Amino acid sequence: MPDTFESKSVRSQRHAINQALQEGHNDLATELLQRLQPCDIALLLESSPSRNRLDIWQLISSDLHSDVLEELAEDVRNGIIDTMQPDMASDLLEEMDTDDLVDTLRGLPESVSQDILAAMDEQDRQRAELGLSYGEDTAGFIMNTDTITLRPKINVDVVLRYLRLKGDIPEHTDTLYVVNREDKLMGGVAITTLITAAPDTPVEDLIKDSEAIPVDMDDGEVANLFERYDWLSAPVVDKNNQLVGRITIDDVVDIIREDAEHSMMSMAGLDDEEDTFAPVIKSTQRRSIWLGVNLFTALMAAAVSDMFEATLSQLAVLAILNTIVPSMGGVAGNQTLTLVIRGMALGHVSSANARWLISKELAIGFFNGIIWAVLIASVIAIWKQDFMLGAVIAFAMMINMIAAGLAGVTLPMIMKKLKIDPALAGSVILTTITDVVGIFAFLGTATWLLM
Amino acid sequence: MPDTFESKSVRSQRHAINQALQEGHNDLATELLQRLQPCDIALLLESSPSRNRLDIWQLISSDLHSDVLEELAEDVRNGIIDTMQPDMASDLLEEMDTDDLVDTLRGLPESVSQDILAAMDEQDRQRAELGLSYGEDTAGFIMNTDTITLRPKINVDVVLRYLRLKGDIPEHTDTLYVVNREDKLMGGVAITTLITAAPDTPVEDLIKDSEAIPVDMDDGEVANLFERYDWLSAPVVDKNNQLVGRITIDDVVDIIREDAEHSMMSMAGLDDEEDTFAPVIKSTQRRSIWLGVNLFTALMAAAVSDMFEATLSQLAVLAILNTIVPSMGGVAGNQTLTLVIRGMALGHVSSANARWLISKELAIGFFNGIIWAVLIASVIAIWKQDFMLGAVIAFAMMINMIAAGLAGVTLPMIMKKLKIDPALAGSVILTTITDVVGIFAFLGTATWLLM
Repeated sequence: MPDTFESKSVRSQRHAINQALQEGHNDLATELLQRLQPCDIALLLESSPSRNRLDIWQLISSDLHSDVLEELAEDVRNGIIDTMQPDMASDLLEEMDTDDLVDTLRGLPESVSQDILAAMDEQDRQRAELGLSYGEDTAGFIMNTDTITLRPKINVDVVLRYLRLKGDIPEHTDTLYVVNREDKLMGGVAITTLITAAPDTPVEDLIKDSEAIPVDMDDGEVANLFERYDWLSAPVVDKNNQLVGRITIDDVVDIIREDAEHSMMSMAGLDDEEDTFAPVIKSTQRRSIWLGVNLFTALMAAAVSDMFEATLSQLAVLAILNTIVPSMGGVAGNQTLTLVIRGMALGHVSSANARWLISKELAIGFFNGIIWAVLIASVIAIWKQDFMLGAVIAFAMMINMIAAGLAGVTLPMIMKKLKIDPALAGSVILTTITDVVGIFAFLGTATWLLM
Repeated sequence: MPDTFESKSVRSQRHAINQALQEGHNDLATELLQRLQPCDIALLLESSPSRNRLDIWQLISSDLHSDVLEELAEDVRNGIIDTMQPDMASDLLEEMDTDDLVDTLRGLPESVSQDILAAMDEQDRQRAELGLSYGEDTAGFIMNTDTITLRPKINVDVVLRYLRLKGDIPEHTDTLYVVNREDKLMGGVAITTLITAAPDTPVEDLIKDSEAIPVDMDDGEVANLFERYDWLSAPVVDKNNQLVGRITIDDVVDIIREDAEHSMMSMAGLDDEEDTFAPVIKSTQRRSIWLGVNLFTALMAAAVSDMFEATLSQLAVLAILNTIVPSMGGVAGNQTLTLVIRGMALGHVSSANARWLISKELAIGFFNGIIWAVLIASVIAIWKQDFMLGAVIAFAMMINMIAAGLAGVTLPMIMKKLKIDPALAGSVILTTITDVVGIFAFLGTATWLLM
């Protein structure tokens, strides 16, 4: 009988292991670990403080080590491999599928991965080096080479007998590939088609004209294709249309998750591999770059205010209200920026509709400007009993909202053209713009009208 | 021969259609549309300004209408259905798979969906109402009912003959399910296992003890299970362990994408269904809630500054520097918040490691405080030639960085306990905290030491 809600029991088992470890009952922990699948052990390691990870690792049965490594997030995996001797690491890596092997090697420092490669046996080293030769984030990088190929003229019956003899069909195989004498891909035949077809049909009559993925296609684009066409797997071909491997949905799911997370993490100035449970010093270092950039832009904004020191020293009320207009511009601009970045990732935003989108966001900026200008003017006029001050802040709000809309939509487009990741730097540049424009508009107008 | 890079040609076809539409060549556009698959037509509609969508819709061959609707994003789909007569809409919806049908109905305003349900034929209405009876975002909501079931005692040979007779196997079927006389699930048999097994094996010997998903499980949890265990499909059972349907990876991929996007969009105060090409008025309305909340918090920060009006009117330099400490606190706090929200989504953060994580983030806040306090103090001491002012800002920075780390890690934990989505409101509450603490610490210390 299947367990109807296994994951709850997995969670409680992880909890029990944590407790056993804390109380020093290593035997109990070892026994509990044996009941978990590799992916659950990986989750346990990822959710543990970094200093406890090696202790847990030692308790895992060594024939699971390789499978657990495959499932681990890069940062955590590297932390564990770093502590191993090269020949021990190479033994573990040799057991991996090509895509995981290459992914692991590439995540390691050059010197470490060279040592491990040197310790590998000839055949695995070649396999790894071929994989490493494809660019990171390409189809070649994430593909596996365990395809089953057929010749066009053989019958369904022969294929089914061949498969029965072979016995072991690679995981996630839903399609067999038909290739001609030069190994060029003619197309795919679904397994479900094979089992429903008449036994004497030649496979070439069953080919569904499946698309092939070029080995150098960007993996984000591969993910979009899988998502759009609901594929479970797709063949990968080189530039001569020769079949070199296949990509399966389980690897694509990881890319989809990572791509979507990448934008969110980048917008907060974080590395998407950032490990929640990394040591304090490492985390502090990683996050400091972004804080440094922000300090610089905050000083720039201060320098703009500094130009209006005379005004500020006479009218302290301006100092009090000086943050409102930049803050509203930052929020409005970030909304637009986030939408455009997502639209780009989904393939919705392109040169064909860029102009329309820019005018739309400008119009929203205009309407936002009117709404919030009227509102803030009323609040200030009542709070500070100063109608003119209300008019000044309203005017600045209007200007900054339009600037925010314009910057939010054009910035990611420009950055994409310059091949800079808009999710990474877009937000900080945008905030700098809305800060500077907002302060200039507010203090400038105030100096002009109120002094 | 398969096209090695079909998506490029799809893109150029979409471009050609846009051009044909702009130039009024409707015949050409219609012809070009016929060459596209439903998912590509959906992308074309999603990437078009909302006012052009109905024109394109009219040009699509009507036998594709239902398939295109299935692929469309909710906002865009609703816009099109809204313009239809109920009986026409019901005709289109009846052709859909149950999961898409239910998803579409639930996205529509109650009155519209009631009209459509009333216009449906009996069988489809029952199917829809059963689907609607499951809670939104549950396994029941995303499952399909097209499972193939087997009895435990029959042989592989019989199954294969049955499948051949049946002819049509539902899309994305990788596993057949074995049920006993009471329709209770005994487990699954992979199709690849069936074709490699000896013909006289009874299927009960081939059962892989697959997990079953309870019909009321949250869809985010379903997605996590699929991702962790690399499933292609999974059976869904009711509380009596009777098989009621199956969930396939293509629907899960959409959930993974939506969940990951949800956090990013929510943190910018956007609805995740927000359509990049919606009309200006609708977009302005949708975004205004968040801007309103932000205006309120900006006014709160201003009110804090207002308490120090006397200090500000004497020392304009404080007004100039008043934004630096809150800004740095906001960035540092948002980094922590983003990490914790992601950690929660991945199942890494739980009560077991909460205390450890809080002390880690406090420590990072402390180190961040030291680093940026020293740096900002040096900059200010040099820029403003005022050592005491540097000390004041350094102290405020220290306080605010620790507050930011503490708020960033505890806020999402508290919100989750209160069942509030941390991605939605976390960022604005955090920024309010870092603004208020930052201003208090800076202007308060300045009033005390410099006045």
